[in-house]
Amino acid sequence: MNKKVAVIRREHFNAAHRLYNENWSDEQNMATFGKCSLPHYHGHNYELEIKVIGEIDPVTGFVMDLKELSDLVNDKVIERFDHKNLNVDTEEFKQLNPTAENIAVVIYDLLRPHIKPSFELFVRLFETPRNFVEYPA
Amino acid sequence: MNKKVAVIRREHFNAAHRLYNENWSDEQNMATFGKCSLPHYHGHNYELEIKVIGEIDPVTGFVMDLKELSDLVNDKVIERFDHKNLNVDTEEFKQLNPTAENIAVVIYDLLRPHIKPSFELFVRLFETPRNFVEYPA
Amino acid sequence: MNKKVAVIRREHFNAAHRLYNENWSDEQNMATFGKCSLPHYHGHNYELEIKVIGEIDPVTGFVMDLKELSDLVNDKVIERFDHKNLNVDTEEFKQLNPTAENIAVVIYDLLRPHIKPSFELFVRLFETPRNFVEYPA
Amino acid sequence: MNKKVAVIRREHFNAAHRLYNENWSDEQNMATFGKCSLPHYHGHNYELEIKVIGEIDPVTGFVMDLKELSDLVNDKVIERFDHKNLNVDTEEFKQLNPTAENIAVVIYDLLRPHIKPSFELFVRLFETPRNFVEYPA
Amino acid sequence: MNKKVAVIRREHFNAAHRLYNENWSDEQNMATFGKCSLPHYHGHNYELEIKVIGEIDPVTGFVMDLKELSDLVNDKVIERFDHKNLNVDTEEFKQLNPTAENIAVVIYDLLRPHIKPSFELFVRLFETPRNFVEYPA
Amino acid sequence: MNKKVAVIRREHFNAAHRLYNENWSDEQNMATFGKCSLPHYHGHNYELEIKVIGEIDPVTGFVMDLKELSDLVNDKVIERFDHKNLNVDTEEFKQLNPTAENIAVVIYDLLRPHIKPSFELFVRLFETPRNFVEYPA
Repeated sequence: MNKKVAVIRREHFNAAHRLYNENWSDEQNMATFGKCSLPHYHGHNYELEIKVIGEIDPVTGFVMDLKELSDLVNDKVIERFDHKNLNVDTEEFKQLNPTAENIAVVIYDLLRPHIKPSFELFVRLFETPRNFVEYPA
Repeated sequence: MNKKVAVIRREHFNAAHRLYNENWSDEQNMATFGKCSLPHYHGHNYELEIKVIGEIDPVTGFVMDLKELSDLVNDKVIERFDHKNLNVDTEEFKQLNPTAENIAVVIYDLLRPHIKPSFELFVRLFETPRNFVEYPA
Repeated sequence: MNKKVAVIRREHFNAAHRLYNENWSDEQNMATFGKCSLPHYHGHNYELEIKVIGEIDPVTGFVMDLKELSDLVNDKVIERFDHKNLNVDTEEFKQLNPTAENIAVVIYDLLRPHIKPSFELFVRLFETPRNFVEYPA
Repeated sequence: MNKKVAVIRREHFNAAHRLYNENWSDEQNMATFGKCSLPHYHGHNYELEIKVIGEIDPVTGFVMDLKELSDLVNDKVIERFDHKNLNVDTEEFKQLNPTAENIAVVIYDLLRPHIKPSFELFVRLFETPRNFVEYPA
Repeated sequence: MNKKVAVIRREHFNAAHRLYNENWSDEQNMATFGKCSLPHYHGHNYELEIKVIGEIDPVTGFVMDLKELSDLVNDKVIERFDHKNLNVDTEEFKQLNPTAENIAVVIYDLLRPHIKPSFELFVRLFETPRNFVEYPA
Repeated sequence: MNKKVAVIRREHFNAAHRLYNENWSDEQNMATFGKCSLPHYHGHNYELEIKVIGEIDPVTGFVMDLKELSDLVNDKVIERFDHKNLNVDTEEFKQLNPTAENIAVVIYDLLRPHIKPSFELFVRLFETPRNFVEYPA
C-alpha cells in the first residue's frame, strides 16, 4: 500500500446572504441572528479549503492533481455561488438557512460524487478570517 | 517642531453591493461590470485602513490614540455600513455606484470633519485581499 | 441525527510573561528557557482559536452562534489575560510556568464548563505566527 | 499521565524543481504536469509546519522546546533543500518526482529518527498559499 | 477635476532564478550573492502588486476596471514569467541579473506602454513575505 | 543616473512594555492609556519593516543586499529589544514612553548612521496586525 497524504486546495468566492428562519417573526430573527438577519442582505469573501486524502500514485507522485481539484471546485462550487445572492439566486438555500455550517455541508454534497470513492473529502469554509467551519468535523 | 509619524488602524465590515449605472441597459451594465452587476447583490469582507499623520505629542508619545481612532471609525463608518446592503440601505450609495473607489472617498469625507485639521488623513480599502484602493492617492 | 460540524472563532490578547522554574538557579533557567527566562518579562500578541464540534441545529442552521462563542471567550479568557502579566497578575500562572502548552490547557479548563457537554472543545494558541500549540492534541 | 499537547513550528525554504516522469515523453509529461514540467525548472517559497504531539513535561511546561525543534528542522531539512534545485542538487529527488506529496514524506522520514519515539510527528507543506499537503493524513 | 484614487491588483507567479555576475569568478559570486548564486537555481512564489493612480470616471465609478488590469498583467507579465527559469527562459534576464529590483523595473517597462498615459504606475514585488521591493520608489 | 528602487526587509521581535507618564497619577495614566498602563506590563510580537531607497548598482543589480540589511537590523535593533522589557531593560525607554510612535523614531535613529548617506530610510512598525505606525511619515 502506498502512503496516504492529504492534499488541500484553497479557492474563494464572494456572495451575499442573510440569516433568518421564515417561520419566525422579525423580532425572533433579530434576537437569534442579530445584524445577520437584516432584510437587504450583507456579504462575504468566502475562502474555501477542500482537502482530499488518498494514497500517493507512484507513477505521478500525486494523490490528485491540485489543478484538477481546482477545476472541479470551480466548476461545481465557485461558478454556482460566486457573485450570487445565496438566498435568492441558488436552489440550495431557498429553503435552507445559508449559515457557514449549512454552506459547508452543501459544498461537501456537491463535490462528493465527483471525488474518487476511495478518497476522503473535507471542507473548511472561512466566512471571515475570524469565523470558520469544518465538515465533516 | 515634533517629529511627524503616521499611525494606522485597521477595521473591517461586511456588506452587500452590486455595481451598475441606472441609466444603462442590463446588457451595458453586464458588459462593463460583469458579474458585479448581477441584480441580487453579492458581498465582501471589507478591510479598512485609516492612516493619520501628525506630530508626536511629547506628553503622551502618541500622534493620536489608536483606541480613539478605532472608536471614531466604528462610530462614523462601521456602524453605518456593516451588515448593510450599500445600494439599498445607505443614503451615500443610493445615487453613487458603490465601487471601492467611491466607497473610499465617501469614508474619507465621513471621517475628515472629525480628525484634527492639522492632521493628514488617508484611506486604504480592501474589497478582497487582491483588490484594493487608496485615497487620496 | 444531524450532521456534525466544527465551528471556530479566532480571538486575540496581548500579554507579558517569562518562562522559568522557581526551583532552579538563573543559570539552569537560562540553559533551558534561553531569552524567554529574562527576569523583566517579554510579551506576545497571542492569537487564540476556539473550536467547538457539535450537530447542526436544524432550526437555526448553527452548531453554536459564533457571536455567543466570541462573547464567552472574551468573558472567560480575554478579560482575564489581555494586557496582563501572566506570571504576576493571574492566579493561574503564579505556580504554573506560562508556556504556550500550559496556557492552552488553562484556557481549555476555563471554557469547558461553559460549553454544552455534548459539544467537543479544542484550543489552538499562537504565541507567534511561527510557534503554536493545540490542545487536546 | 500528563496532558497531551501538539506543538508546531513553522519554517521556510526556497527551492527550484520541475515535475516529470523520466519514462515518459515530453508530451506525456506536459499532459500530466502542465507548466510544472517545463524543462528549465521553476520554484517556490515552501512554508513548512512540523507538528510534534506528546505529554507536557511538568518540570518545564514544554512538550518539546520549539527552539530545539526549529534547530533540528533547520539542520536536517532546511540546510538540505534551501536555495537548491531539488531535482539536480539532492539525492532524495534524483529518482523521485518532487511533488509536494513526495517532499512531505521525505521530510517526515528525515525528521522521524531524531524525534523521541513516544512523540507523534506530522508534516504540513505549503507549495503556495493555495496548494498544500499534510502527511501523515 | 475628478478625485484621484489609487487602485491596486495583486497577482502571483512562480519562477526559478539564480543571482550572479557572469564576469566574476564563482568565489566572487558566492561572496556577493551567497546561496542565491548556487548554479542549479532556486525559486520563489513571487507576489506582484500593480498600482495605477488616476481620476475616478464618474460614469463607472472606476479609475480602471481591476478585471482589465488583472487581464493585462496576466497577458504581459504572468504568462511571460510564470513557471519559467528567469535566467534561461526569458530574453529580459539573459544579460540582466534577476534581482527583485531588476525584475520590478522590467515589469514596469512591460506594463507602462499599455497603461493610459495620464495614469501613474507603481510596481511592488515580493520575493518572499519578508523581502520586497517597490519601483518607482 | 541609475533607477531608484525601494528595498524592504521585514524582521520581528517580542517585547514587554507599559505606557505611562511618570509625572501623572495612576488615574491620569489609566484615563489616557487604559489597559496599556497596567503596572506589570503586557507585550507584543512587533513586526518591523525597514525600507531603504537608492539607485540600483548595475554591477550587482541590488540597491542593497537584503541579507546585509537583515544583519544590520538584527545587530542594531533586534538584539537590543528582543525578549526585553522596553521600560526596564533599555536605555532608550527609561525616560521615553514606549509607544509605537516613539519606538519607530528610536529605531530610525539607531539605523540611520549605518545606512549610506545617499540612501533614504523608512521604518514601519506593527504593534499588532491592526495597529501600526510609519516614520518618517
